[in-house]
Amino acid sequence: MTERPSTGVRSYATPQLEAFIARALGAVGLPPSDAAEVARLMVRADLRGADGHGIFRLPQYVRRIRAGAVNVRPRIGVASETEAMALVDGDNGMGHLVMGFATRLAMDKAARQAVSWVGVRRSNHAGPAALYAMMPLERDMIGLYLAVGNANHLPPWGGIEMLLSTNPIAVAIPAAEEPPIVLDMATTVAAYGKVKTAAQRGEMIPEGWMLDTRGQPLTDPRRADEGFLLPIGGYKGYGLSLVFGLLAGTLNGAANGRDVVDFNKDDVTPTNTGHAIVALDVRRFAPADAFKRRVDTLIRDIRCSKRLPGVERIRLPGEQSHVTFVERSKDGVPLNPALQAQLHRLAEDLGIAPLSRL
Amino acid sequence: MTERPSTGVRSYATPQLEAFIARALGAVGLPPSDAAEVARLMVRADLRGADGHGIFRLPQYVRRIRAGAVNVRPRIGVASETEAMALVDGDNGMGHLVMGFATRLAMDKAARQAVSWVGVRRSNHAGPAALYAMMPLERDMIGLYLAVGNANHLPPWGGIEMLLSTNPIAVAIPAAEEPPIVLDMATTVAAYGKVKTAAQRGEMIPEGWMLDTRGQPLTDPRRADEGFLLPIGGYKGYGLSLVFGLLAGTLNGAANGRDVVDFNKDDVTPTNTGHAIVALDVRRFAPADAFKRRVDTLIRDIRCSKRLPGVERIRLPGEQSHVTFVERSKDGVPLNPALQAQLHRLAEDLGIAPLSRL
Repeated sequence: MTERPSTGVRSYATPQLEAFIARALGAVGLPPSDAAEVARLMVRADLRGADGHGIFRLPQYVRRIRAGAVNVRPRIGVASETEAMALVDGDNGMGHLVMGFATRLAMDKAARQAVSWVGVRRSNHAGPAALYAMMPLERDMIGLYLAVGNANHLPPWGGIEMLLSTNPIAVAIPAAEEPPIVLDMATTVAAYGKVKTAAQRGEMIPEGWMLDTRGQPLTDPRRADEGFLLPIGGYKGYGLSLVFGLLAGTLNGAANGRDVVDFNKDDVTPTNTGHAIVALDVRRFAPADAFKRRVDTLIRDIRCSKRLPGVERIRLPGEQSHVTFVERSKDGVPLNPALQAQLHRLAEDLGIAPLSRL
Repeated sequence: MTERPSTGVRSYATPQLEAFIARALGAVGLPPSDAAEVARLMVRADLRGADGHGIFRLPQYVRRIRAGAVNVRPRIGVASETEAMALVDGDNGMGHLVMGFATRLAMDKAARQAVSWVGVRRSNHAGPAALYAMMPLERDMIGLYLAVGNANHLPPWGGIEMLLSTNPIAVAIPAAEEPPIVLDMATTVAAYGKVKTAAQRGEMIPEGWMLDTRGQPLTDPRRADEGFLLPIGGYKGYGLSLVFGLLAGTLNGAANGRDVVDFNKDDVTPTNTGHAIVALDVRRFAPADAFKRRVDTLIRDIRCSKRLPGVERIRLPGEQSHVTFVERSKDGVPLNPALQAQLHRLAEDLGIAPLSRL
């Protein structure tokens, strides 16, 4: 643990964070091995800089588990399958466990059939999309992940009723010497978490993020409840959110459209979250090394290409997260004082040792 | 054939158009059955309103075939496969033939394994993305199509070197009583064809479509060569274009990045176009009727939801194309006088009967 005195921000090492999360989840009923797996994935999110998807979510997860909205002893199973496909029923378990199961299954199937598609229903929030898209990288596979978000903030294009979510896509592609390409994006201009963060900080948000119901730009995030997020590329982002929702939600019998439960406002209703994970085994297309070298070439062509005036560096998707991962793996994950205090109260509440002690 | 006298626009019936295209392609060496298949798919593009991807392309196709850039007697084959995956080598044949082969293969594999992924290399321009994503609909399957565009108009975010194309995605999802949902979109704000159309008409283009190399908005489409297209959602659209290019191009050993041949400027170099088609059999996830009814429900929830002031109708992706398809199937495909004249010259040049005669 290191402290930056002026701000109250403290950094915590991976083992500390994992152990604390596992203690908290164990205290509300998760078996130790499940609690440890969720903890490992949540901290991986923090290490990569997805601060809204890691330990930040722990108080909410604990609240929902205690309210009975999440099953701490799920029987995660396969409802339908072929050699290349499966439909996984998460039995309302923690999303990380369900998606861990689904992604391992997808990799095993892709190892035999070169491609696999695993759909998931009755899951829960599982952290950042990149977590699962990246798992197949270890086996020289490409990962593609889609999900239905856990709150509707997006109306159809031209509408004001929020029938769609920020439904993200993540794609991870292995490289040789370069870090992998990891795209992880919501289909809205800004994720809703960024709006909430701005509100907490007392900052305004840029035009183009949100509209109010009269169609006027909404730039005061404290008024976020009076408006909605805008999709990327206008009707195109609406179309992407819609088809990702159909593929990750409706196809699997998971929530989509009016069925989506806003898990920020509702602690008691199971979300029936849907996901889809696709694994592609590079080796059936080309020797893995040859493919990864070609990816390196493209990465370097892009990075070294001519820049617009004032642009210092051209980045690849996932590059900044990779840098953050390397830094935080060494220096720890910085947590702001408000979050530290929240986690301290959580520890007291659960009667477990606080984060500061290993 | 019907004429609107004031504009010189004439409408042509499907059999006329198909027969003319087949005559032209036959005259430059395609076997009759291949010429007929390409013609059928090109006219289907026109019927759905994809005017830049149908008969409009015929003179260019003929020019490239005559220059030896396209193989009129390809041996389209499978370079690698499993029960769920294939890598198709198009042997530099017409893209429509190659993608027809690949999509039929994908559907057959998905019928057994529920999902299939077919990558394609050494193909050519194949018309609009929706054509191939829609084919699986007939078998209650979902289609997902990706391609590398045939000219680089997009720099990486922050850059000015056009290393990427408008790489499109199309997804088609069957419904019960409603028309299917068919998303077909470039990853740029505007397709390059729209810029060219504006230039022909002497119109300006909106801010947000293009920048010049100093980073200033470019709104005069006659200056298009001095600038580049902008991606949807800034760095997000750049990321989508990049990963679609890797999946449809690099993975298959097809052109991507610096290898891409600008087929608008170069009539002689094979393009080594890459595509990917994914078919998903709905029935392994849910009874097809139940799924399609759920899609209908979502479509109607969206269409009937509250609208922004001034918005008359909320549309679903593919709805306008479906309306156009129904209209043009009845009334024919309207062609402007410039295109009519171009096709007339083509007929003379090839020594075939012109379009106006059946």
